[in-house]
Formats: sequence, structure tokens, C-alpha cells
Amino acid sequence: MLKMSLLTIGTVAFDALETPYGKTDKIIGGSCTYIALSAAFFLPQVNVVAVVGDDFPQAYMDSLISKGINLEGLQIKKGEKSFFWAGKYHNNMNSRDTLVTDLNVLADFKPMIPTNYQDCEYLMLGNLTPQVQIEAIQGLKNRPKLVVMDTMNFWMDVAMDDLKKVLKLVDVLCINDEEARQLSGQYSLRTAAKLIMEMGPKTLIIKKGEHGALLFQDTKMFYCPALPLEEVFDPTGAGDTFVGGFIGYLAQTNDISFENMRKAIVYGSAMASFCVEKFGTERLFEVTASDLEARVGEFKELARF
Amino acid sequence: MLKMSLLTIGTVAFDALETPYGKTDKIIGGSCTYIALSAAFFLPQVNVVAVVGDDFPQAYMDSLISKGINLEGLQIKKGEKSFFWAGKYHNNMNSRDTLVTDLNVLADFKPMIPTNYQDCEYLMLGNLTPQVQIEAIQGLKNRPKLVVMDTMNFWMDVAMDDLKKVLKLVDVLCINDEEARQLSGQYSLRTAAKLIMEMGPKTLIIKKGEHGALLFQDTKMFYCPALPLEEVFDPTGAGDTFVGGFIGYLAQTNDISFENMRKAIVYGSAMASFCVEKFGTERLFEVTASDLEARVGEFKELARF
Repeated sequence: MLKMSLLTIGTVAFDALETPYGKTDKIIGGSCTYIALSAAFFLPQVNVVAVVGDDFPQAYMDSLISKGINLEGLQIKKGEKSFFWAGKYHNNMNSRDTLVTDLNVLADFKPMIPTNYQDCEYLMLGNLTPQVQIEAIQGLKNRPKLVVMDTMNFWMDVAMDDLKKVLKLVDVLCINDEEARQLSGQYSLRTAAKLIMEMGPKTLIIKKGEHGALLFQDTKMFYCPALPLEEVFDPTGAGDTFVGGFIGYLAQTNDISFENMRKAIVYGSAMASFCVEKFGTERLFEVTASDLEARVGEFKELARF
Repeated sequence: MLKMSLLTIGTVAFDALETPYGKTDKIIGGSCTYIALSAAFFLPQVNVVAVVGDDFPQAYMDSLISKGINLEGLQIKKGEKSFFWAGKYHNNMNSRDTLVTDLNVLADFKPMIPTNYQDCEYLMLGNLTPQVQIEAIQGLKNRPKLVVMDTMNFWMDVAMDDLKKVLKLVDVLCINDEEARQLSGQYSLRTAAKLIMEMGPKTLIIKKGEHGALLFQDTKMFYCPALPLEEVFDPTGAGDTFVGGFIGYLAQTNDISFENMRKAIVYGSAMASFCVEKFGTERLFEVTASDLEARVGEFKELARF
């Protein structure tokens, strides 16, 4: 049994994407898929808890398994359909329209955590209803060494009370700048961070897309720039890939100090910079260890002075 | 006579400001004022070429002189009024409305460069009509070691041909992200940078406000984050203070390598982070050398990994 086991819970789904560069039919997507693929880069195994319908192709599952992703916790609902999202990006890739959101199996998802996952030391809660995130934490006999969560503005609108309960249970919250402003009611991200850390998480990551990411803990701050890219082909999953790389690196090194979190943010940013180079998860299946080290080298060159 | 003499040309003016924190009557402003105050932090003397009316108070001029700013090149037009700008910032400080723009003396400004300024090795062209920027360069007998220029989207709208002529004459262009996108017609800042550097300047700085600043030269890139601040009191002049600190540091160290430009960007960013802490130029008059070194230390702490 692995010592530094990582469990991630979230969505495994179909996405249909349209960007200025082209469009896809239904392809593999979902927060858990991107998180697991990114984290699996750093670990021999990543455990997944999620749900799909019986329309989800075995070939997709095999491709995840081939990357070290353990699907023992993937529920397959007979006669039901997988979660489906379709979206269209505008020219600048910074905004998008949701064309379709079919919850399907996700509507009554109850996370079930296999016995083999109970040694979990690193837990990554992908974006899901806060209630399901709470059930996932409660489904573990022992409190993991580190719990990281993602969420989105939608839950702040419709389930703020539940969201505040999850916040008290986690170590690291990872959200974008707009969400941090909404959650705190403050425009200054530094002030927002202070207020959000009083809500529970000792550590806060604020993702700023093409402007990089901020890491806060107590009075400590780290600002990781994003690598300016000539072309963003498809931004889908970049945030999940980022946080998957972050927690994957922490689990690999088994060091949750702020110093090591700085490095983990850079590794997560590097993984995200690959993700956007092709449609969906495609690029994540190709990246090699030497690709990653070269990209991290580019971040070092970008930021040093 | 100073060896590393720095000359800056731009506006010396009155500003009236309104931010969510309060409002001012007419106070000292203008691109040249902020650039000179920031650059003077690094140098025993900064030479200024600008124009004001005879309504401009001697006390304001004395305050600049007390900071090592040489006003021999400041034309004072009898019976005319100084340039006046009034603006109101919105709640998030990222957008503002211009309430008044009275060009006054600026309408027919002809830069005249005193003989004592002719040894100029570092030239900073503040935001002015491209035609006046060209006249300033032509007014120098010897080509300076480094010419840095600022401009704005307005000149791209109304004087693009002239602007392209200035671009061929300068070493460093300093603009914001929106202006870089307009000038290049490209959304990707990396692609925009490539195209803009083909227009003349070998080095490009793209200011991104609260998201920091990018420096490009050939295929080299540096991304300096902005220090997240709890409160931005008044953003007026932050961009000019930034570029004034940049060229001031380069002139002080007399080293225009890309390696040293990285450091100059950090020093410029640190100066700008002070500028926004109080109304107008107020904070720039107070900053001490130890304040600056401490602030640069915060940038180092923010960016290291």
C-alpha cells in the first residue's frame, strides 16, 4: 500500500468544446479527470471517487488507468447518462458561454469511498456541491494530512451556508480572483485573503488565469506568474490541472510547508500551461518528465531577478 | 557635470482627483513630475523639459528642486495656464472617468533642450504627442545611450503614423496590456510583444497594473509580479512612477543589460507601490532609501520559489 496516497473526488464527464481554433464532439472531461491526470504525473497511483453513466466508454477508463489512475471508486450507474457540459469560448479565451449542462448521474451523486482508499493522506475535493464535499470528508475514518478544495461562485450564490461548513474542514482553498472577491466582499485580494483564511482554510490559493496565481498563509505571500503563451488553444480544465499538479507535487515530496507549497504552485502552473496547448485532456496524456522539468525551468527564468 | 545624466520630457501639470477615499483640489501632477520624482530617487540630478503656465506655484517648483530635479528646461508661459486634468476613479480603482482635460500651454508645446542637458545619456519620453517626442530626440546632438518612451492608446487612434516613426527611434517602449493589444492587433501578449519589437524598440515593457509587469527582449522574458496591497488609495501616476524608477535605476547603475533591466523593473514596481499609497505625488516625497530597500525585499520574498 502506498504511503502518500492521494484521493480526489469530483466529476468525470463528457465535454463538448468550441474555441476559435475548432470544436470537438463529446470528449473526456470533468474536474476529477483533469485533477487525477495532473496529480498522477507525480505519483504511482491516484485514487478517484466519482460517478458516470453506462454511456462512458471503457476506452476512456482504460486511458485513465494506463496513467496510474485507480478507478475502483468510480461508480457506473446502469441505464443512466454521464454528466455533460458544452461550452463555447470567445475570441480572447477569457470568457465563455455554457451551451449545455446536463447533470444526469451527478444529480444524486453520493460519494462512496472504497476501503482501499481509507489510508488517504492527501485529499483533493474538486468542484462539487458543498454537501457532497462534506460527505466525502466524513466518509474517511482518519483525517487526511492535507485537504485541498476547489469550489465556484455558483455555490456562493445557492449554497453559501453549506460552503461555509466545508471551509471549516479544509486546509487549502483554491479559487479564482472573482470568486475570492465574491466570497469576501472585498476587492483587494490581500484583504480578501485575510478574511477568507478566517473562514477556515489556513492556506488560500487565488488563481488569476493569464496573470498567474497567488498563495497566502498567515502573513506570507507568494505570487507565481503565468508563462505568457503565444497561443491558448483551449483553456478547459486548466484550473483543475493546476490544483492537481499542486497537490500531486506535495504528495510526491510529502512536505506541506509553505516553502514547498511555493514549488508546488510552480509545478501546478507548469502542468496547466501544457493543458491549454491542445483540446481537452489531450496534451496531458503526452507530457513527459523532461517536458515538465524544461517548463519549470522556463518559469524559473521568467521569475528570477 | 554628471556622467549618467538623465533627461525626461513630459507634462508638468495640475490634477484634481477623486477616489473612493476622498478628493483633492488642484495638486501637482503630470507624467514628467512622477517620472522625475521617481528617477531622482536614484540620481543626484534629473533634468526636465516641460511647459507650465504662470499659474504654476513657485512652491511646487521648489519642492521638485529640493528633490534634485533640475527645472532649467521648464518653460513658463506668461499669461497662460498649465495643463489641467481632472478624473474620478471607480470603486475598484481599475477604471476611471476623465472629467476635465484642459490642454492650455500643452496645445502648442515645442520642447527646447538647454545646452546643459546635451550630455544626456538616458532619455525618458513621457506620454506626449508622438510629434513632440520626435522633436525631443532630434533636439539632442548625440544619440543617448538609452531612449525609453511611454505612449497611450489615444495616439494610436489619432496619430499612428507619427507614433510608428517614434517607435523606430527608441530602445524601450513602455505601455499597458490594452495598448499592446491595440498596437499589435494581437490578444496574446507574447505574440503582441514579438510584433511590437519588430516596429523598432528592441525591448518592450508591458504594464499590467495589479497583475505586475512583463519585460521582453529578443526571446527573453521577465514577469515581475505586483505586490498585492491591502489598499490602493490613488493609482494616479503609478505607471509614470514605475517607468521613472526603471530608467532611474538603469542610469544609477549605468548598466542596460537585460539582467539589470530585470532588477530595474523590480525597483520601478517598488516605487509605484509607494505612489498609490497616498494622493498624487505625496508619498513620493516621503519615501526613504530604507523604505525602498525594505519594499524591494518584499518583492523578493513574494517571487522566490
